[in-house]
Amino acid sequence: MPTNDQKVFDLLCSFVRETALLQSTFSLLGWDEQTGMPPNAAEYRGEQMAYLAGIIHRRRTDPRLGEWISHLADSSFCEQKHSASGTIVRELKRQFQRQCKLPETLVVELTRTAVTGQRNWQQARHENDFSIFRESLEKIIQLKREEADAVGFSECRYDALLDEYEPWETTSRVKCILDGLRKELVPLIKTIQNAPVNIPTDCLHRRFPTETQKIAGRDIAKAIGFDFRQGRIDTTVHPFCTEIGPYDTRITTRYDENFLPTSLFGILHESGHAIYEQGLDKTWYGLPPGETISLGIHESQSRIWENQIGRSKAFWRGFYPRLQALFPKTLCDTSLDKWYRAINTVTPSLIRVEADEVTYNLHILIRFELEQMLLDGGLAIADLPNAWNEKYESYLGIRPDTDAEGVLQDIHWSGGAIGYFPTYALGNLYSAQFYAKCEEDLSDLETQIANCQFDAFRHWLQSKIHQHGQCYSAGELVERVTGKPLTHRYLMDYLKTKAMEVYRL
Amino acid sequence: MPTNDQKVFDLLCSFVRETALLQSTFSLLGWDEQTGMPPNAAEYRGEQMAYLAGIIHRRRTDPRLGEWISHLADSSFCEQKHSASGTIVRELKRQFQRQCKLPETLVVELTRTAVTGQRNWQQARHENDFSIFRESLEKIIQLKREEADAVGFSECRYDALLDEYEPWETTSRVKCILDGLRKELVPLIKTIQNAPVNIPTDCLHRRFPTETQKIAGRDIAKAIGFDFRQGRIDTTVHPFCTEIGPYDTRITTRYDENFLPTSLFGILHESGHAIYEQGLDKTWYGLPPGETISLGIHESQSRIWENQIGRSKAFWRGFYPRLQALFPKTLCDTSLDKWYRAINTVTPSLIRVEADEVTYNLHILIRFELEQMLLDGGLAIADLPNAWNEKYESYLGIRPDTDAEGVLQDIHWSGGAIGYFPTYALGNLYSAQFYAKCEEDLSDLETQIANCQFDAFRHWLQSKIHQHGQCYSAGELVERVTGKPLTHRYLMDYLKTKAMEVYRL
Repeated sequence: MPTNDQKVFDLLCSFVRETALLQSTFSLLGWDEQTGMPPNAAEYRGEQMAYLAGIIHRRRTDPRLGEWISHLADSSFCEQKHSASGTIVRELKRQFQRQCKLPETLVVELTRTAVTGQRNWQQARHENDFSIFRESLEKIIQLKREEADAVGFSECRYDALLDEYEPWETTSRVKCILDGLRKELVPLIKTIQNAPVNIPTDCLHRRFPTETQKIAGRDIAKAIGFDFRQGRIDTTVHPFCTEIGPYDTRITTRYDENFLPTSLFGILHESGHAIYEQGLDKTWYGLPPGETISLGIHESQSRIWENQIGRSKAFWRGFYPRLQALFPKTLCDTSLDKWYRAINTVTPSLIRVEADEVTYNLHILIRFELEQMLLDGGLAIADLPNAWNEKYESYLGIRPDTDAEGVLQDIHWSGGAIGYFPTYALGNLYSAQFYAKCEEDLSDLETQIANCQFDAFRHWLQSKIHQHGQCYSAGELVERVTGKPLTHRYLMDYLKTKAMEVYRL
Repeated sequence: MPTNDQKVFDLLCSFVRETALLQSTFSLLGWDEQTGMPPNAAEYRGEQMAYLAGIIHRRRTDPRLGEWISHLADSSFCEQKHSASGTIVRELKRQFQRQCKLPETLVVELTRTAVTGQRNWQQARHENDFSIFRESLEKIIQLKREEADAVGFSECRYDALLDEYEPWETTSRVKCILDGLRKELVPLIKTIQNAPVNIPTDCLHRRFPTETQKIAGRDIAKAIGFDFRQGRIDTTVHPFCTEIGPYDTRITTRYDENFLPTSLFGILHESGHAIYEQGLDKTWYGLPPGETISLGIHESQSRIWENQIGRSKAFWRGFYPRLQALFPKTLCDTSLDKWYRAINTVTPSLIRVEADEVTYNLHILIRFELEQMLLDGGLAIADLPNAWNEKYESYLGIRPDTDAEGVLQDIHWSGGAIGYFPTYALGNLYSAQFYAKCEEDLSDLETQIANCQFDAFRHWLQSKIHQHGQCYSAGELVERVTGKPLTHRYLMDYLKTKAMEVYRL
């Protein structure tokens, strides 16, 4: 006969699994909205999603959850911290407490402000006029301060916001690591800019028909292990990866007929996210041991395929002949070496989503620093555009001429996502550190990649990272896998080595 | 200040509208399952749909619904039978009472039996062996008897089942009309078969590439008024139309590269269903005045576009040149007259879904008669295959050689749908009666059709039928629109006139 603890544990799990049924249905509504929904359906889709979000929110703050979690807190289910049951109680407790600390009025106000904020941001960007967005952003920052105060923090408000995306992480630790990165990155970029080589990139800017790009993209996704029996690829303006069930992970990409890298690296990136989801332990679907750890770890899995694998010479040794076969006339004059160098050029630019893998991290750093200043009141919203431009000039040596290509370029803040940006840089750091360890573990990795064999690499990721779900925090996991806490060392080594090769430094 | 009645009415409406949010979300899950869902996602999709179906069922039998409806029963809201509020209370009462009369155990048992039934039916059809399905069908018939007894009826059990698909209709009335139809249809078919003409149909069986068929299909759908801003067309094995929101009606079709009519008439048919949904009064979405009346009326709207319009000479006078332009080589030797006669040939055949518009009705009659015999015990399940074959021989002059092309061809019974088939024939009858009236009302209808102008016809349907939602029952509506109760007269006249023209009788 099951003990009372067992009964409570089962009740808890089945309640949360039911919520996952609704959450995954909500994801389908969102996926469909982005991919194929008829335009006039938008308004009602908003109602469908808001209604489901309401049900989900009520379930996540259901008092019974709190009772079950309290009941289990001192039970044998929590004895082993990293066990499935220990993880379930710990992580559900963390989520539940966060949800319950937020007053309903604040949640409603945040949602409403985000809707207005996104509309104003869109208009502001369209009209290239920050002042249209200013008031919304002021309101958003004010509400996010209230959110941080309601959630609570030990050192600074930013901790409380970061925790939503990167659980158990602290601002001071992230700051310390990213500062270390910046100190080495800025000089590296200067060195690259002064390098006496000119790398032609015209081979990327030719005419590549969408239909052929689709073939190339599916070919690559399939080769690296994206499982089409439990996923699909669609076309959207803003690429994303979404999970619609334990065996249903969908990615999207966009195609630029005059620039091949957009879809190729977009698909590598999103496939990386999807391979993480597809590699989770499905028996725990909907519960913490079967869920992804943090946005930083998620991003590490997309970046490792996009960059460490996808921008390596070995990868294109295997794939470039296939690419040339698909675009025989367009790429016949471009050697593997030329291609490899073209996709690895480093150029300071104004737009984050178009940045190369070296300068990208400075785009993030700028946002991370500005967010902290906005939150603690050290920077007034009115002064934000100028502060943004100053930082671009100081870190990247270029200055936006307009708000649209400056402070208004990203959607995140307008929707209330403050504390999200650093997870992009954390992803880059984690990916480099994981990859360095994997190279140690799999001695012939480069040869395998050059032979388009990715099974061993993917299994390494799966066994070291994916299958553990949330049993370890991001910080615990990186130490467990690599033997060291997260450091900027590996990313810098990786970027420097490649720069030396590409720029012949 | 609103009266108490008004408050109760508002509560009732908002509760039912919320249920519609869930119901339309459920439809999206179903649409996605049929169109693009990755294969491995099927099992979890079943769980998502079952969970949502459970919530929806609990809402539909929520005791508060009963209280609100009782409260309003003698209020001013019900004074005008055909008003929106009168319709809301009347129809919700009908639905609620039906739902509540069904014991939960019976609902569960029916669902379970349907799942097993469909599996066994598939296997039986695959192996061409009725005995594999026999036990399931026995169980289904037994449970449907229990359902009828629980729901209650005045004349016969079949009434209670028919009511689910064709509210307020009676078996005796349907029987009387279909008997009248049969008596004239059987001799007409004999006359056609004995006609001394040979109509070549080889022009339909040529090579028509799917991509070009898609262009033709979209062209036709757009021309007749399917609104792509609030709908889309996808490809599935079994075509259907589904509503995912007030401004989101999606249809599907299939393409046979060696037989053009499948997609052309399939799209006309499903567009007809969709145009009905798109023509409803959106302010009442989710409530009876904004919902379709019955399956029979729904089918009339698909058939009127597929047959009365889509198989008319006028329609192809306008469209055939476009079709020839799309398939210039394939159709260059086929004149408009040849094409028109080819798509209107009448040939008794074994498979319902491939039947022409004349013999189709006999396929339905056979099923309708057999269903009644099964239900009242006049026919044992073991004797069903033979009874089926006898009826085909008697009505259509042909006899199936196997169960697969006989009694096992349709999915309906295996899923527990008994009483559904007659709505197909009712649809044909309604469409002919509506069309005859419309021809009276719009004197230049034929000219308009020949000019590919369908706005006046569609507006006629919308103002006479669509916009009233469930404010009138099917029977009331046909009298209101045509001045006469439903009769087989109009369909017979239509079929005879066309047969005389096509077969030169």
